[in-house]
This record gives sequence, C-alpha cells and structure tokens, in this order.
Amino acid sequence: MLSLVDLRTRISAGTLDPAGAVALSRAAIAAREPSLQALAHVAPDPVIPRDGPLAGIAVGLKDIIDTADMPTEMGSPLYAGWRPKADAAVVSRLRALGAVPLAKTVTCPFASRDPAGTVNPHDPHHTPGGSSAGSAAAVAAGLLPLALGTQTAGSVIRPAAFCGVAAIKPSFRLLPTVGVKTFSWALDTVGLFGAGIRDIAHALALLASRPALDLQPEGVAAPRIGLVLQEFAGPADPDAVAALQRAARAAEAAGARVTDFTLPQQFVEAWAIHMTVQGFEARQALAWEYAHHREALGPELRAELDGAQALDASAYDAARRTAHRARRVLKDVFSEFDALLTVSAPGRAPAGLTSTGDARFNRLWTLMGVPCVNVPVPGDGLPLGVQVVARFGDDGRALAVARLIEAALAKSRRG
Amino acid sequence: MLSLVDLRTRISAGTLDPAGAVALSRAAIAAREPSLQALAHVAPDPVIPRDGPLAGIAVGLKDIIDTADMPTEMGSPLYAGWRPKADAAVVSRLRALGAVPLAKTVTCPFASRDPAGTVNPHDPHHTPGGSSAGSAAAVAAGLLPLALGTQTAGSVIRPAAFCGVAAIKPSFRLLPTVGVKTFSWALDTVGLFGAGIRDIAHALALLASRPALDLQPEGVAAPRIGLVLQEFAGPADPDAVAALQRAARAAEAAGARVTDFTLPQQFVEAWAIHMTVQGFEARQALAWEYAHHREALGPELRAELDGAQALDASAYDAARRTAHRARRVLKDVFSEFDALLTVSAPGRAPAGLTSTGDARFNRLWTLMGVPCVNVPVPGDGLPLGVQVVARFGDDGRALAVARLIEAALAKSRRG
Repeated sequence: MLSLVDLRTRISAGTLDPAGAVALSRAAIAAREPSLQALAHVAPDPVIPRDGPLAGIAVGLKDIIDTADMPTEMGSPLYAGWRPKADAAVVSRLRALGAVPLAKTVTCPFASRDPAGTVNPHDPHHTPGGSSAGSAAAVAAGLLPLALGTQTAGSVIRPAAFCGVAAIKPSFRLLPTVGVKTFSWALDTVGLFGAGIRDIAHALALLASRPALDLQPEGVAAPRIGLVLQEFAGPADPDAVAALQRAARAAEAAGARVTDFTLPQQFVEAWAIHMTVQGFEARQALAWEYAHHREALGPELRAELDGAQALDASAYDAARRTAHRARRVLKDVFSEFDALLTVSAPGRAPAGLTSTGDARFNRLWTLMGVPCVNVPVPGDGLPLGVQVVARFGDDGRALAVARLIEAALAKSRRG
Repeated sequence: MLSLVDLRTRISAGTLDPAGAVALSRAAIAAREPSLQALAHVAPDPVIPRDGPLAGIAVGLKDIIDTADMPTEMGSPLYAGWRPKADAAVVSRLRALGAVPLAKTVTCPFASRDPAGTVNPHDPHHTPGGSSAGSAAAVAAGLLPLALGTQTAGSVIRPAAFCGVAAIKPSFRLLPTVGVKTFSWALDTVGLFGAGIRDIAHALALLASRPALDLQPEGVAAPRIGLVLQEFAGPADPDAVAALQRAARAAEAAGARVTDFTLPQQFVEAWAIHMTVQGFEARQALAWEYAHHREALGPELRAELDGAQALDASAYDAARRTAHRARRVLKDVFSEFDALLTVSAPGRAPAGLTSTGDARFNRLWTLMGVPCVNVPVPGDGLPLGVQVVARFGDDGRALAVARLIEAALAKSRRG
C-alpha cells in the first residue's frame, strides 16, 4: 500500500517530488485497476501543487462527492455524465492542502447496498464491501494513499475491514457533508481510508483543521478499553471473535486495561431503530429519484425506499428520542472507558459479488455519531478488522487507541 | 393576499378548480411583478395536478432551493442558468401533495446579506428584508399563497416582519434541507411564508407529514407567555417595542398569562457566538465559490468570508459547546412558559435598498433550533411583527399561540 505519511516524509526530505508521488499512483492504477474496477473516473491531467501539507497526495473520492472538474455519477445510470457546479466542501479543503483529487471511486448506487462492480483486492471472487467499495479497494490495492468514503450504516468501517485497510468514520459532522449526496442527514458521515492509522490520523487532523487529532509522540498511556460483543446484533463469525480477542490481548500486552462490557438496554433499543431514522430520511432525500426513476434504482435501494414509504413521522420522532437517550447514556459509558473495542463486521468478506455484507455491527455507532476506527488484524486469508469507538468529539483518542492496538498486533505477529 | 386555506376551501367546495387558483397567481404576477421584482423565474407551463391536499396552490421557492425543471441561480451570476439534476426534498414533497412550484423567488446571493433587487410591496423605497426577499414580498403582494425561504440568522422572520406576512422558521430539520444550497449546516432552516397563521400551519403540517402541527379547533387555552426584550441584542425601535406591548396586551385579553422574562446569561453568550458558528461553516460550505470566484461574490458575503478565514476550529468547537449549554437551559425555560414573545426585527423595514436590515433579534433562536413564528401587528405605516418562540419540536404550540395573538390583534383593532 501507499502510505500517506511515508510519501510526505520522502517529499519533505527531497527524495520524491509531488509529481513523482502522484506518478506512483498512476502506475499502480495502470497495473491493477483493469481487474479491480475500483475507479469510476481518473482525472487525465490534474494540477499537482508543489506546496501544501498534502502536496503529492493523490486522493480518491467516492463518486457521491461532488467535483467540479470530474463527473459525479452516484453509481447510478440516472447521473451518467453528471457534472456538479462546485466541489464538495471536503474537496475544496483537500485542494487547499495541496492534495490532488485524482479519481472518483466506485460506489454502490446512491451509497446504498446494491453491489457495484469492484472486487476485493485480496480475492476477486469476494466483495470488497460497500457502499464505499472503490475507496477501500483502491487504498488496499496500493492505487491511492488516501480515499474518502461515507458511512450511513456501515459503509466505511465494513469495506475497510473486508479490504484490510485503516479507516475512520469521524465524529458526526467533523468533516462537512456539503456537496455529498444525501442518504440520511442525521447519519451520513464522511470518512477516510489509508494504509495505516498514522496515515488517516494525519489526514484527518489536516482536513478538519484540528492538529490535536494527529497521533502524539507520547501515544496513549494504559487506556481503559471496554470489550463489547453487541449480542443484540446477532453473533459474529468465530474467526471475527478470535480476531477481536487477539486484538484485546495485544492491547493488554501494550499496557491497556481491557474489560468485558455489556451495553445497557438503551443501546439495544437504539440499534433497533437505526433503520427507521435512515429509511424515513432516505425517502425524503431520494424523493426525486424515487418519484421519477423508481425502476432505474437498484433492487435493494428500491426495496428499502418502498418499505420506507409506510414509515410514519411519529415512528421517526420516537426513534430520534430513543437515539438521544442512548447518546446520553453513552457519555457515562465513556467516563468508565477511554474506548470500546468490537468487531468491524460479522466476519471476512463474503464470497461472491451479489452482496456487500452486513452493517449490523456498525449501525449503532453511526447513530450515536461517535468516532469509529477500523484496525486491520493481521492473519491468514481474507482480512479481518476490529473497530475502536470513542466518545463524541474524541477522535484523537480513538485514533491513539487504534494505533496502540495496530502496533501491538504487529509486534505480537513478529514476536 | 392569497390565502392558502381560503383557496383550498373554494377548491374543495367546487367553486374554484386548481387551474383557476393558479391563474389567480398568474394574474397577480402579471400585474405586480414588473415593479416588485420578487421572482427570479416563473414556470411557463407547469403541470397542475387536480388532486392532492395542496392541489391548486402555487408555490414560490427561494432560488437556492434546487428545482429540476427551473433554473436555480442562488442570486448570483456564478450560477446563471444553472440547472440542478434533481428537485430538493421539499420540492418533491410539495409536488407529491399536489402543489405547483410556480416560481423561483429572488434571494440575496447565496442567502447572504447583499441586497437583491426586490422592493418592499408596501413602499418601493424600502427593503423587503433578506435573504428570503422574494418569498416574503411575493406573498405580501398577493402573487402566491405559499412561499419557501430559509433562515440561517434571520432570513425568514425578518423579511416576513418587514413585508407584513405570517411566517414560520420551524424546528431545526423538521423540513429537510437536502437540495438547498448550504450556508451553515448547523443553522440553515427551511421556512414558510403565507397570508396568515392558519395558512402556514396547514402547509407545515402537510409538508412535514405531521397532522398534529395544524391548528386545532379548540385552540390553546390560557398559554403562559414570557415577554422577552433580548437586551443583549441592543434596543429595538420604540414603535417595535410598542407593537410588542400591543401584542402582549391583546394576548392577555384573549386569556394568555404574560410575564416579563429576562433570559439568563447563557443566552447572552449563545447570542454572541452565533456568527462564529455561521462563519466557520460558511467558509467551508462556500469554499469553492470563495477559492475560484471571490471577486464575483457580493461585498457583504466576501467580507464575511474574508473574516471567517481567520476563525479557528477551537473557537468553533467552543461556540458549539456554548450553544449546547444554552439549549439545555432553554428546556427549563419552556417548563415555565408555553411560548416566548419578542420583536421580529429592530423596527420597520429600513429606507433604501442598500441593506436588508438586521438579524440581531433572530440569531439566538436560529442557533437554538426552536420554532419561531412571525405575527404581523396591524397598524399604520410599514408593517411591524412580533415573533412567537416555542420549545424545540413544539411547532404546533408556537403556531397555536401565534394564532391566538393574531386573532386577538385583529379583534383589538376592530374593537
């Protein structure tokens, strides 16, 4: 994989220039993209700034993120060739930092669950996950050092786990969604994919204009970690649970205090109403597409919107209150724990390209608006991942704990 | 003015058909629009549904609200001729209800403060207010029975007061902002203008799919009203204060219990940081326009964005915490009062078209996300208005109290 921090270190040292760094991406794209199908569009001749803290960093943008100089097709024939007027806010910020928006990445239609054509870089017969399929796969395959995706249920953390890359779904609205196609305004969250935790931490700190989010040299001392199984979401596969235990033991070896923790009843209720919030808002956000082009929508999205037509505003209002109650309780949970640790997905990437997998271990955290970081767990076979969850606004701590676990896992594998 | 409820009553009774109702708007537009300059675009031949609870209702849409079949120019030459792909969510909802999006209404550029060309229908030498200038003026001049605007500081309530129409800025996100140009995602709120309180109540209940928001036959019994001067925002003009007192006395005569109330210190602090939230978000939301077309922006918006470049994320984060604290205290305030009553603007519409007036009596409530209703106060000269503010989510109560005051003022004027 291309590490953002490594590229920037070489550029700062003068052993690589920004154009050379972008050329590495172009070469990798030429070699791997024909079989990977991760990119919806590649900019033929983008400006490559020589200066800026992200100069030389080629970025992939999920194709629901508006770009003024590239098509933005939402993964749907309805938007074939569509050119937005303006860049999304995050794209403007990337350009201001010197980064090069090089490619639009393949997305499930409207960031829903209907599979797109991207394959898993570790095995082309398996899904890369979704809906940010292309962003996860492009980083995993070494095409790009940074890619942006979005998560409404599990569309950042799940594909990151399936593809074996680091990713963060930051606190709700830490990164602006202006110019990003809406699915659910209370849930949609822009997230980042990178080769490792330090890469996404560095990128997030810059994108969010909050230097304190970056990893600090002193790391995090003896974090209190709650180990959470989310039984209400159903069981995870045995090897996913084994990976979670491996991550927990590695964290303990690195000084963390890990305690089993069962989430109280408010979270069971909150988990159950995520789809009510998502559906009621998606019905409004995609009302034009549904009213005028229902037959052209993918079957999964069409079925979800069909079902959402019956949702009552009172059910939505009740769901919002349920979520609010759980958010209040979560504050107390995070007075006991610096972070929670749980699986990123039910297991490895499922075989076949007819499903993008299941977001049932992600939904609660998106609804809570709290930062989640996927840490790949090294091992044999297709990748597995664990997610580190921290208090709202405490993205820096989520990343620090994730880095501790990432380093501890690497050490235990070497040891 | 054209009353939505009156038109619907006539249509239901069979004495008017939907095409006839829309023809009333067309005739009024032909007569008054040349001097008013309230409309950015009029649909030449829109479909007029025969059925639906808003069939026959011609609607004006502030020209930052996306329409697939009409240009959406944001009040700016940068977006001249721009045609969005899809309708905004509220536009889809209007069409589903049978309403006819007939016109785009003039907006200050990007819903900012730079004046647009619309004049005040009561005196062409005075501003109609902004930024929803065209929506307020079009309803006041009898062009349309319903118009949509947006408020980030005071862009719904202020022009409604200056033009003498009823308007509601609903609870934050009661109406979706999907497909509405963003200025500040934590503040932007879609609002409604109509001839009277019953018109906007009926429209809001339908648009929000919440029938309970409509006025109930039994009205509201003996509401407890807190009379608020917002001294921290500076003084209001004597005739605005006199109108507020007149509204308070009329409410008392109708059975309300009105008590003077001084907002505690948390609200002074919240009021002071509204512009920090707005500026920090506007800088991101309009980053593309600022980076590529700064010179083509209006001078007021350019100056605001220039100033916002220096805002630090930590100042923004602190401002959000200040707002959060005030929202908590506001819940307690609304355990004592059913509604607060305050001025809608510092006074009557200022002379000249070089300013849209001042939002200083509106900012706090937009930041709090609570429903605000403008009630015109009948009298001589240019219009004055008072605003009724209620608890978050209690838009129905805000409207019921506003209706009580509207009826009481009409009675006191007759009596």
